Amino acid sequence: MQKGMPYLDMKRIMLRVAYDGTNYCGWQLQPNGITVEEVLNRNLKALLKEDINVIGASRTDSGVHALGNVAIFDTDTRIPGDKISYALNQKLPGDIVIQESREVPADFHPRRCNSIKTYRYTIQNSRFPLPTTRLYSYFVHYPLNELLMQEAAAYLMGEHDFKSFCSANTHVKDTVRRIYDINVEKTDERIDIIVSGNGFLYNMVRIIAGTLVRVGLGAYPPIKVQEILNKKERSAAGPKAPAEGLTLLKLEYPDLM
Amino acid sequence: MQKGMPYLDMKRIMLRVAYDGTNYCGWQLQPNGITVEEVLNRNLKALLKEDINVIGASRTDSGVHALGNVAIFDTDTRIPGDKISYALNQKLPGDIVIQESREVPADFHPRRCNSIKTYRYTIQNSRFPLPTTRLYSYFVHYPLNELLMQEAAAYLMGEHDFKSFCSANTHVKDTVRRIYDINVEKTDERIDIIVSGNGFLYNMVRIIAGTLVRVGLGAYPPIKVQEILNKKERSAAGPKAPAEGLTLLKLEYPDLM
Repeated sequence: MQKGMPYLDMKRIMLRVAYDGTNYCGWQLQPNGITVEEVLNRNLKALLKEDINVIGASRTDSGVHALGNVAIFDTDTRIPGDKISYALNQKLPGDIVIQESREVPADFHPRRCNSIKTYRYTIQNSRFPLPTTRLYSYFVHYPLNELLMQEAAAYLMGEHDFKSFCSANTHVKDTVRRIYDINVEKTDERIDIIVSGNGFLYNMVRIIAGTLVRVGLGAYPPIKVQEILNKKERSAAGPKAPAEGLTLLKLEYPDLM
Repeated sequence: MQKGMPYLDMKRIMLRVAYDGTNYCGWQLQPNGITVEEVLNRNLKALLKEDINVIGASRTDSGVHALGNVAIFDTDTRIPGDKISYALNQKLPGDIVIQESREVPADFHPRRCNSIKTYRYTIQNSRFPLPTTRLYSYFVHYPLNELLMQEAAAYLMGEHDFKSFCSANTHVKDTVRRIYDINVEKTDERIDIIVSGNGFLYNMVRIIAGTLVRVGLGAYPPIKVQEILNKKERSAAGPKAPAEGLTLLKLEYPDLM
């Protein structure tokens, strides 16, 4: 549909995409290594008999998981929007599942429209790692104090310049973001950091997680998070926690009915 | 240590073994395909410089997981029993983790001594499968009524002849076992069947799970489980649920101090 006049019956489809990121080099097309975007494009082409180029909301890194990433594409297929998920899931490998498909307005763009993003960072905090959660969590041997972590996380609530929590190799100029909610939840030997905001800088959730782990270990006092924010430089914050602990839980678009 | 006089300083070590069964052809040594037992033997030999043949408590099937299987072996190593776990974990692949090692009496045998075994069977009950839990649960699309499943499970409590819940290709004569506890727990879109007993027949937990799923779907009334028990034939029960949903949670030995 890219060339010539727009078809009258062309439509924009939104996909809600869940994936196990273990075996992918992230979302975005790469010259070396398979990505989620590539697998979606290939299977959509096979299904719809058109060249399809999806646009993803969040270009997750290698090894990062998602339960609700969002992608759009334009098509003139006659398959109803809400039926595409079923047909596409028949073709996709087991580690990528479309949770929902539906038609959206032609001007809806998953990165340009306002959204609330929610991430979960999972830590396995036990004496030994757990084989069955190793691909979906960061193993920390030393006991973490989750109450200190929650106290530290509270400094991140609201609008701040998160420059200290952004990997240095980024091109973004505006590093101000708003965190709506951040909670540290402990269940048995598992600690989840759940954070939602209007946007996240490159590696921001993983640097927040790495910093909160330092607090949980007692290496940083909780107030240190305020000092890190004030410094506005990456070196002030803790290390970037590993990819496997991160899951993009959901994306909400308040303006999308 | 197999030949000649027993060493005075020989000792029996118990391992508590957790593994992700996805990539193994079960516990027991196989001519074709790698097993957990084989990987333990090979790495113990490399660590202790002795031929080691572990004896496992539960010879789990291909694809079944464990958080607390138990194995023993005899050794004359000078490494203290409780330190072997640390040294062995350095060598093992990430999908097998020793949770505990310790010296036990020389007459302790993990299959001959009385034990309480606890299994969990996990069902992902949602509209679409979840990529991040697909290797550790059985995906069921149609909504399950977990209250009916709990009602049905109650018929299994106590001592019964579980012949109907045993795969036909077994050599066991005595099919009487005692279930101490069985619970069906629902959390969001996940249903766990947790069952503990003094022993389980071949495929028993998976046949119980497959039968309870039938009840949850409304295909069997809960009382049907009583009828299945009475019939004492495999064909009376529901299908065997898939391996990936099953996890051996723990083994307790009341006589082991």
